[in-house]
Amino acid sequence: MSKLTDLPKRILIGRALRSDKLGETLLPKRIALPVFASDPLSSVAYAPGEVLLVLSVAGVSAYHYSPWIAVAVVVLMFTVVASYRQNVRAYPSGGGDYEVANTNLGPKAGLTVASALLVDYVLTVAVSISSGVENLGSAVPFVIENKTLFAVGTIVLLTLMNLRGVRESGKLFAIPTYVFVAGVFLLIAWGAFRGLVLDDSMHAPTSDYEIHPEKTGLAGFALVFLLLRAFSSGCAALTGVEAISNGVPAFRKPKSKNAATTLLMMGTFAVTMFCGIIALAMVTDVKMAEDPAKDLLRNGEPVGADFTQDPVISQVAAAVFGDGSFLFVVLAAATALVLFLAANTAYNGFPLLGSILAQDRYLPRQLHTRGDRLAFSNGIVLLALAAAILVYAYGADSTKLIQLYIVGVFVSFTLSQTGMVRHWNRHLRAEKDPAKRRHMVRSRAINAFGASFTGLVLIVVLVTKFTHGAWVALLGMVIFYVTMSAIRRHYDRVAEELASDEEPADLVRPSRVHSIVLVSKIHKPTLRALAYAKLMRSDRLEALSISVDPTETKALQAEWSERGIDVPLKVLDSPYREITRPVIDYVKSLRRESPREVISVYIPEYVVGHWYEHLLHNQSALRLKGRLLFTPGVMVTSVPWQLDSSEAAKLRARKRAEWSAPGAVRRGPAPRAPRQEKTETGKP
Amino acid sequence: MSKLTDLPKRILIGRALRSDKLGETLLPKRIALPVFASDPLSSVAYAPGEVLLVLSVAGVSAYHYSPWIAVAVVVLMFTVVASYRQNVRAYPSGGGDYEVANTNLGPKAGLTVASALLVDYVLTVAVSISSGVENLGSAVPFVIENKTLFAVGTIVLLTLMNLRGVRESGKLFAIPTYVFVAGVFLLIAWGAFRGLVLDDSMHAPTSDYEIHPEKTGLAGFALVFLLLRAFSSGCAALTGVEAISNGVPAFRKPKSKNAATTLLMMGTFAVTMFCGIIALAMVTDVKMAEDPAKDLLRNGEPVGADFTQDPVISQVAAAVFGDGSFLFVVLAAATALVLFLAANTAYNGFPLLGSILAQDRYLPRQLHTRGDRLAFSNGIVLLALAAAILVYAYGADSTKLIQLYIVGVFVSFTLSQTGMVRHWNRHLRAEKDPAKRRHMVRSRAINAFGASFTGLVLIVVLVTKFTHGAWVALLGMVIFYVTMSAIRRHYDRVAEELASDEEPADLVRPSRVHSIVLVSKIHKPTLRALAYAKLMRSDRLEALSISVDPTETKALQAEWSERGIDVPLKVLDSPYREITRPVIDYVKSLRRESPREVISVYIPEYVVGHWYEHLLHNQSALRLKGRLLFTPGVMVTSVPWQLDSSEAAKLRARKRAEWSAPGAVRRGPAPRAPRQEKTETGKP
Repeated sequence: MSKLTDLPKRILIGRALRSDKLGETLLPKRIALPVFASDPLSSVAYAPGEVLLVLSVAGVSAYHYSPWIAVAVVVLMFTVVASYRQNVRAYPSGGGDYEVANTNLGPKAGLTVASALLVDYVLTVAVSISSGVENLGSAVPFVIENKTLFAVGTIVLLTLMNLRGVRESGKLFAIPTYVFVAGVFLLIAWGAFRGLVLDDSMHAPTSDYEIHPEKTGLAGFALVFLLLRAFSSGCAALTGVEAISNGVPAFRKPKSKNAATTLLMMGTFAVTMFCGIIALAMVTDVKMAEDPAKDLLRNGEPVGADFTQDPVISQVAAAVFGDGSFLFVVLAAATALVLFLAANTAYNGFPLLGSILAQDRYLPRQLHTRGDRLAFSNGIVLLALAAAILVYAYGADSTKLIQLYIVGVFVSFTLSQTGMVRHWNRHLRAEKDPAKRRHMVRSRAINAFGASFTGLVLIVVLVTKFTHGAWVALLGMVIFYVTMSAIRRHYDRVAEELASDEEPADLVRPSRVHSIVLVSKIHKPTLRALAYAKLMRSDRLEALSISVDPTETKALQAEWSERGIDVPLKVLDSPYREITRPVIDYVKSLRRESPREVISVYIPEYVVGHWYEHLLHNQSALRLKGRLLFTPGVMVTSVPWQLDSSEAAKLRARKRAEWSAPGAVRRGPAPRAPRQEKTETGKP
Repeated sequence: MSKLTDLPKRILIGRALRSDKLGETLLPKRIALPVFASDPLSSVAYAPGEVLLVLSVAGVSAYHYSPWIAVAVVVLMFTVVASYRQNVRAYPSGGGDYEVANTNLGPKAGLTVASALLVDYVLTVAVSISSGVENLGSAVPFVIENKTLFAVGTIVLLTLMNLRGVRESGKLFAIPTYVFVAGVFLLIAWGAFRGLVLDDSMHAPTSDYEIHPEKTGLAGFALVFLLLRAFSSGCAALTGVEAISNGVPAFRKPKSKNAATTLLMMGTFAVTMFCGIIALAMVTDVKMAEDPAKDLLRNGEPVGADFTQDPVISQVAAAVFGDGSFLFVVLAAATALVLFLAANTAYNGFPLLGSILAQDRYLPRQLHTRGDRLAFSNGIVLLALAAAILVYAYGADSTKLIQLYIVGVFVSFTLSQTGMVRHWNRHLRAEKDPAKRRHMVRSRAINAFGASFTGLVLIVVLVTKFTHGAWVALLGMVIFYVTMSAIRRHYDRVAEELASDEEPADLVRPSRVHSIVLVSKIHKPTLRALAYAKLMRSDRLEALSISVDPTETKALQAEWSERGIDVPLKVLDSPYREITRPVIDYVKSLRRESPREVISVYIPEYVVGHWYEHLLHNQSALRLKGRLLFTPGVMVTSVPWQLDSSEAAKLRARKRAEWSAPGAVRRGPAPRAPRQEKTETGKP
């Protein structure tokens, strides 16, 4: 612990928080907002641009539909926020979408939501990182020229940070998020002031560009379809809203109320920023095109492949603050940072959801352990790999990645809200108090509206985006769904096999124990194994040596007699120097002779400190053990001998144990079970 | 066993030979010759060409030195054969070069020889395969056009065959080797007949080419150096001669005498073939150049990069039998096959040497097991990888690879013969019988001459080939030497640490056992673990459950009481759902309370049949076990529960056990230890 090398780390990130202390740190609203809102708030960095991008297909004239689309997004946002305010009240223990769907709609719906959320986490990383790099690139051209490289590099960096286990604090989230929010509000206010009061005319860098419409004179169904597509893209602003519903236990009391308030604040901030940016984009004449190289014209000529289309937020900032001005650079940096933080939330959410799924046996049991480093690492690496592949495949183009993004979000919105309707129905059947009933009926109405609205949006998203990439997300969901179902089926089959209704059939009521200590030579580990085996007072005890070299065996037998070891030594011949087969054969023959005897095999094992030492020790023991375990009526005891070098591994293990899993701040304290420590049951 | 899928294999390769039956099959000389001689005999396919190649540097006129070089090679061959005839007589148990050097010159010399031999095996594969592909290519141009591909492909094929474990028989070696030997003798005889009796003039395909000498008018030191270089290359004919000295136990009785006779036959065959081919090459005017593209002229013009220089043996065969004639194709095929067989001998030798080195603790202990599949596989893969890298790096060019080859061979020749001199010196000091002494003095003289001659050749090879590639081989030897010394030092350090001169210091004379059965739920595996633990009659027995979920824990406690299980159940709280830490902490606290108590932890373990099931089970148990073993005074018992799916793994294991390691034919039967089975020592 107090090693010299730890000192710089201690100074940099403070004393590592023990996980049992973590339980005491609860979040006030002012910290909870940035902790949970980096994902939904950061999406205003790309959502407005996506709306304009889609509209541009019908030419600049279609931009005048953008306020209407903004209104639709605002209405949807408040619907979703209102719905989730019901969730956090109904499930103060932190009922995420998975649990709500699972409890109220059954395991299939739950698993569907889980698959959607897993895909969603991957895309949160891919989209946020790509968009973050684009925003950074608007201030630092070098970054945008090596977009994929920087995006993948950021993923690697975040992955390493999370694997390493960085201690979190609310401040880490608060500072960039508040800088970002303040920056955007200042942008909107200053823009409004310049436009309305000073009557300045502000021009975005692309204001005097023209757009070559892909389709002119769109009307009727085609126009409606385009507007729906634009709306679908705008819905990207809603991603991450559901995060708070998982995090209620992290809030200060009254938890539910504080969470609901925070949710409302977040929604208000998000829509204000979203609408403000769209409005400024209109005022400053931002031009965005789906395929800028071809469709964006400068002096009547296409801008060509070299042109990089900056995000709307940075174009607006250039118009309002001035391109390259101090505020412009600060906002670009804050935007990128908030987007990277948003990606980081997925690094926390993915393993947490994994642990909940493991609890329900959809994933390997060991993921169940909260903050278990190995389980956590596996989840992190899987997430990072999937995201990096997507980023690479789509060239870190946030516009393309967003086509995949929103499906998963709305699958879980819709199923979660539908589940809530069921929840209220069930409670209404039991509730008699008219005041409470009224409250429930109101909640149910809100959730029902939320479910219908988000369900409608899901259909719109699927229809308008399926061929644009949504199928990839759906495929991902199907893969997760099928894998997790298979794992669950396996566990169920095993559980059935192990169910102990009757006594184990093949246990012919064991009556005696025959202990065998494996001996290769007489040294400390062997003597310890013999001493331990003798303490166990089995019915028969013998030492067993496999003779691979007659000379060595003779020496062993001589030393055995000389030392007067009071355990009989049996020697088995093995001309081919095999260890495993003679032992297995001997054990089997003992079992044949007396089937009611249990064989207990003691293996002296070396405990070493370095991975390469494993190659040099215990290999025969390991393989023998592996084979012995297949033989019924056998138990295998490892008697460890700690080599000096094992100290190194012990130190490492201690360090690992002190590691605290990222995401702890969002997760809140663990539910304290009723004090049970050292309770004893059963007759002594 | 009698599974349907085994049937085709049974038909194809016959019933698998059980290794204990193998002991009965000893080799008569007519089979021993091909089994051991494929490597040295096959080298006449490339050695003569290498001589001409080097001489060509000084122009065609230098070719007239080739008979003198052939004579030098013949003298060297008989010297080496005579020397090894002493080895096989002195070490009828099969004293390979490593053992001779190790016993007589000490471990450093032994390790040097071992390193040289390991490098040598890698190069045997690389050179033989490359030369085989070149010979095959002289009949099938398509092969030579994709030389590297075919060479690496052949390595992969041989590797798979050896990993799979092909049953060997003497015939497998005998047929191609005798076809090859017969073919070469027929070639020489028919060539002599046509030349001397019919007075035909025979012309090799390159007979009317000219050679542009790189250096003209070489004389004095430069000429001597060139001749020495040519001689060094010719020494490639001697590789593999030492193989018989490892294989004496595989011979029929009288083993040593038969081995010595076979050695002489092999030497005679090899030199006859070597000289015959050189003579025919002179008669048919074969032209070889080191850099044919530049230095080989056709009608006064360089032949260019497209030209492939066929091996001498195939050019001579084209001249004598006719290009593309039936006999020409048969000889080319037999040559290639024998070369591939020669490569295959390295696949057998490498793991065998590994097992001997493991016995002396220069390599991980588990390699010690004779014919152990896993150890064997690792050796095979290492050998194949190294050879494939060399083949790829040198473009499967046998001429370039041969520059690396001969160093290792002569290092082991020299040290082995020097060791033999010491051997005789030692025996002479003890021997009184004048007849036997005379015999020994004679043997010593032969070995002394052999040692000086091969030592001289080693210096010549090093001097003439160092910059041509011999340094790579030396580097390889150094790497093996350093690695093996490090492993040995590690084992020595551990052995010292474990030496049991006194009682283990930290064993405060354990007096009692406290047994703990880990329980997660009540099912068959748990019940079995409890039943077994109860049989062991420890001083204290309790069940321990980690509460990760209060509801589950309550249910467990209720069932425990209900079933009336007569073992107290202790429950430890774990708010973070960790398993390992609470158990470790509890065990440590027990040890602190009563240091003389040994803790025995019983873990119910699932035994599964598929690798992916391991991901789903036992992970927590495994990690807990790993951590427990670091805690002093603890033993860990696995109580296995065989799941139905474990049957699959059992079948696989049984199949693996029946696998017989390639190379068994060369190795001979295992030394039968004096019957020791079921001997008991010590007081019961």
